[in-house]
Amino acid sequence: MNAATPILSGLRVVEVSAFIAAPLGGMTLAQLGAEVIRIDPIGGNIDYRRWPLSPEGASIYWSGLNKAKRSIQLALNRPEGQEIAQALITAPGEDSGILLTNLPASGWMGYATLRERRPDLIMLRLTGNHDGTGAVDYTVNCASGFPIATGADTRPVNHVLPAWDIAAGLYLSTGLLAAERARRRTGEGQEITLALSDVMLASVGNLGYIADVQANGAVRPPMGNDLYGAFGRDFGTKDGRSLFVCAISNRQWRAIGKATGLAGKLAMVGPLLDVDLDDEGGRFQARHAIAAVLEPWFAAHTLEEVTAAFANSGVLWGPYRDFGQLVDEDPRCSLANPLFGEVAQPGIGTVLTPAAPLTFGDGAPGRRPPAAAPRLGEHTDAVLAEVLGLSAAAIGRLHDAGVVAGPA
Amino acid sequence: MNAATPILSGLRVVEVSAFIAAPLGGMTLAQLGAEVIRIDPIGGNIDYRRWPLSPEGASIYWSGLNKAKRSIQLALNRPEGQEIAQALITAPGEDSGILLTNLPASGWMGYATLRERRPDLIMLRLTGNHDGTGAVDYTVNCASGFPIATGADTRPVNHVLPAWDIAAGLYLSTGLLAAERARRRTGEGQEITLALSDVMLASVGNLGYIADVQANGAVRPPMGNDLYGAFGRDFGTKDGRSLFVCAISNRQWRAIGKATGLAGKLAMVGPLLDVDLDDEGGRFQARHAIAAVLEPWFAAHTLEEVTAAFANSGVLWGPYRDFGQLVDEDPRCSLANPLFGEVAQPGIGTVLTPAAPLTFGDGAPGRRPPAAAPRLGEHTDAVLAEVLGLSAAAIGRLHDAGVVAGPA
Repeated sequence: MNAATPILSGLRVVEVSAFIAAPLGGMTLAQLGAEVIRIDPIGGNIDYRRWPLSPEGASIYWSGLNKAKRSIQLALNRPEGQEIAQALITAPGEDSGILLTNLPASGWMGYATLRERRPDLIMLRLTGNHDGTGAVDYTVNCASGFPIATGADTRPVNHVLPAWDIAAGLYLSTGLLAAERARRRTGEGQEITLALSDVMLASVGNLGYIADVQANGAVRPPMGNDLYGAFGRDFGTKDGRSLFVCAISNRQWRAIGKATGLAGKLAMVGPLLDVDLDDEGGRFQARHAIAAVLEPWFAAHTLEEVTAAFANSGVLWGPYRDFGQLVDEDPRCSLANPLFGEVAQPGIGTVLTPAAPLTFGDGAPGRRPPAAAPRLGEHTDAVLAEVLGLSAAAIGRLHDAGVVAGPA
Repeated sequence: MNAATPILSGLRVVEVSAFIAAPLGGMTLAQLGAEVIRIDPIGGNIDYRRWPLSPEGASIYWSGLNKAKRSIQLALNRPEGQEIAQALITAPGEDSGILLTNLPASGWMGYATLRERRPDLIMLRLTGNHDGTGAVDYTVNCASGFPIATGADTRPVNHVLPAWDIAAGLYLSTGLLAAERARRRTGEGQEITLALSDVMLASVGNLGYIADVQANGAVRPPMGNDLYGAFGRDFGTKDGRSLFVCAISNRQWRAIGKATGLAGKLAMVGPLLDVDLDDEGGRFQARHAIAAVLEPWFAAHTLEEVTAAFANSGVLWGPYRDFGQLVDEDPRCSLANPLFGEVAQPGIGTVLTPAAPLTFGDGAPGRRPPAAAPRLGEHTDAVLAEVLGLSAAAIGRLHDAGVVAGPA
């Protein structure tokens, strides 16, 4: 971790958000050094108590997605609170005037309304569908084709990873920086929208599934853990663990034969099935026979033995781990990886906490060190003073009137 | 689709890449208007024939991930080809001098070497692991904990979506724009690296799975298609279709009872199990009983009947679709959605093709219309002329010497 100024220092983004996608987009910018002010209604937004909770009742979910931000609590259901939110969003400065939200953007938070206060406002808005109707990761995912293609049969299998939310968050951070670049050149802001289902549809198209249907009439069927178009799948070990091994390149393919001592047997699969094993498509076609040769070898070795046999062999593989094994076993998930720090998170304890995964050259403007999420309202007074220039007395009156709230 | 200048017009990025993550990062920028020049060795890189293929043998995979780019073929195994690649990467101009790669960056493509030619170079490099060792989406995913937590039991289930590659691509586009912003302010470039496994680890941490292990000693078990921490799961319909329905908010929860006519029975589940159904955690705890009440209703109705019953009801739900049903049934996956255009893709045909999912205000700098991928080497001559200022005669000599190649 370099100690230089973070790369997005000076940029200010106001976030009015909940759940995963918009918070992740804002957090990514915060982890790169932007000042990201998350505005919440007093008591927190709908995601503030989302499971899992810590023994003390704090949301592990919320803290994970709001690291490195500043938090302010405002009475958003009252005109006085809305006025403060508008003032924060439209505060002057060439590095501010940027709003990121996934909440309904009408009334006081409508683009046209906010733009009256700051004509060069940049506003990024995540919606469910492109027509403005609602959708969440789960209801987008079921239509994507992936749950039907996942697993061994056509019963739908939902992935536990909210992949569309993650991609949406990172499209938002990309779009926000693109818009800020454009504003710097033209002086003009704009409203940018992103529909969660468009993220899914674009990805399905980018990965070729739409064209495969249209050009080939092909609908990718479920094929368990087999990798499509090359050789790769899971195997069980002698000690009851599982691992994934694959070969994309010919070099990786030859490495499997060499490391297992099964090169001779594997070579026999080509003539057996009349396929070219020096071609990844040929290896896909012959995958069941290849797996039948490899299966007894994995079943006769422990994970430790496999690890030793594959060390420095050029084999592309990895063990399956549950979340506990990931934390306990994987050296990449530890302080040995500069991605992580031990960070004290209020209400949760000191936990292994990631920075942004982008890493920067020594001495160059980089990422922030791993940081905690704020307590709700932790920066209420500081933000009111620094961004709006309010006096301590004025801030005190807002507290007394219940328009703002400090740390929960 | 607005007809204004794309938002990243003028920015030039050189990409030396293969597969998904780095190409997606570059494509996202290209779809927003950047000039992205993908350099490939003559004949194409290792991903050029990746499945699925069209009937004519063109890679649907490659074309999906390289849309809106320019393509140049160079003899990268010869000093003359390397010299041209270096010249393209380090060409002068405040909007150029940016390299995006996921290939081994040593020798002619090492950062130190390139920086000698352009001290303010920005270089983004995707690696497998943070220590520089190799990994791909599949071998990162198996360690992530998600395949063990996916499905109904602890047998690992790989998701078919390369989610880590997608996230990595979008971290790269975010990081690239952050670095370009910093260079514009400081005049300094830098090397930025991103490890695919760090993308996974940061995401696992961001979503709370690491802290859940450390603070609670809890390892999320597989729970089929049940949504964790709230009510949501799949149901089968009378006509053999599947759908997903969930309730995060209380409003969504009440909508299910109202639309199915089962509000009274659902209310009985609270006292039956001593849980508070006005709390999402309570609904999670009571999910099996809730599902038992709902299951016969879905089984007694066709998907069409459910669709009618849920229309404008506020129920958060969606049908499962395979890739064919997505293309055939979903109006969002059609020209009715401004995300898509019908685009003629060489070697594949005219297919429904997405733009970037970010949408921009009318008249504002926006995204490019949906665009095809180039033919390999389609822009060889144009790039040599426009970026390096080579004459037609000089370009002809490079062709004759086999240093460059035009359209495949």
